Amino acid sequence: MHKLALSKAFTLIEPGPVVLVTTHDGTKSNIMTISWTMVMGFGAEFALTTGAWNHSYAALRASRECVIAIPTIDMLDTVVGIGTCSGRDTDKFQKFGLTALPGKEVGAPLIKECLANIECRVTDIVTRHNIVVLEGVAAYYDRARREKRLLHAVGDGTFIVDGRKFDRRKMMRAKLPPGV
Amino acid sequence: MHKLALSKAFTLIEPGPVVLVTTHDGTKSNIMTISWTMVMGFGAEFALTTGAWNHSYAALRASRECVIAIPTIDMLDTVVGIGTCSGRDTDKFQKFGLTALPGKEVGAPLIKECLANIECRVTDIVTRHNIVVLEGVAAYYDRARREKRLLHAVGDGTFIVDGRKFDRRKMMRAKLPPGV
Repeated sequence: MHKLALSKAFTLIEPGPVVLVTTHDGTKSNIMTISWTMVMGFGAEFALTTGAWNHSYAALRASRECVIAIPTIDMLDTVVGIGTCSGRDTDKFQKFGLTALPGKEVGAPLIKECLANIECRVTDIVTRHNIVVLEGVAAYYDRARREKRLLHAVGDGTFIVDGRKFDRRKMMRAKLPPGV
Repeated sequence: MHKLALSKAFTLIEPGPVVLVTTHDGTKSNIMTISWTMVMGFGAEFALTTGAWNHSYAALRASRECVIAIPTIDMLDTVVGIGTCSGRDTDKFQKFGLTALPGKEVGAPLIKECLANIECRVTDIVTRHNIVVLEGVAAYYDRARREKRLLHAVGDGTFIVDGRKFDRRKMMRAKLPPGV
């Protein structure tokens, strides 16, 4: 797990992958699968939509911290499994054989098996819309990992995998933020 | 362009594609390229992050309407082109050879060349975060279109195309909303 500049963290979320979000409630760590995320700025600002229907929400609201972990295609069944059981009665790190690594800035753990991790603080909760606003405070990327293709949830039980990549950096140069 | 059930509209946004958003200011139509979107519910509820830095924002705020149009891989250079010029001095429908079709519920136009279109009303603007909250009121999908692969912006000037699809409907059955 290598340090990633916070100015690049939004490029992990902008393509719209399904992500894992870890929390720690003071006693236990938990993980949720989330697709409802949004980049809100180039400075590692993100939004999630979640609420009381999600067991992790209480820990997220109380601790005001979480980690966004980015899984890859080889983790598809783990991602679906995490999304279809509850931290209420399941230790998901144990059940899915995942390794919790301590974060530097927040109490929620990183997931070692993921391609990337972003430690986040909750800066606001827009309660009328169930929007949790996050600011990344540290980011990591596993450069040694061979599988880098992300997963995209369609929402109907199917998932699409990253395919080919196209480069339009020249056309977009004037629009790209510094440090990307 | 065939009608799509509103209960399925979120499946167009959940995989995180780059989208085109049209507005109409009473005189002219405009288009912006946006990657900062989020699903907020199964009932065609969405968020965008945008603000005064975007020429379309004034029309979006004043009309409280827009259309989210979903482009595909064959439209990559159109998507990048729309994102790198401004409605201030450019008629983007004309410049990019796009066909504006009238919406049924809103004044903003559909884009005929896109795979899908969602007519939306602005239900709220969370000004402190530049979050525009939308509700889909009609949706369309071009079933006859052969190219269906969506584009995902990385944010660094590169774009990733939809690859293989995996089916996990059985595992997820209990979690899927009705009508999907």
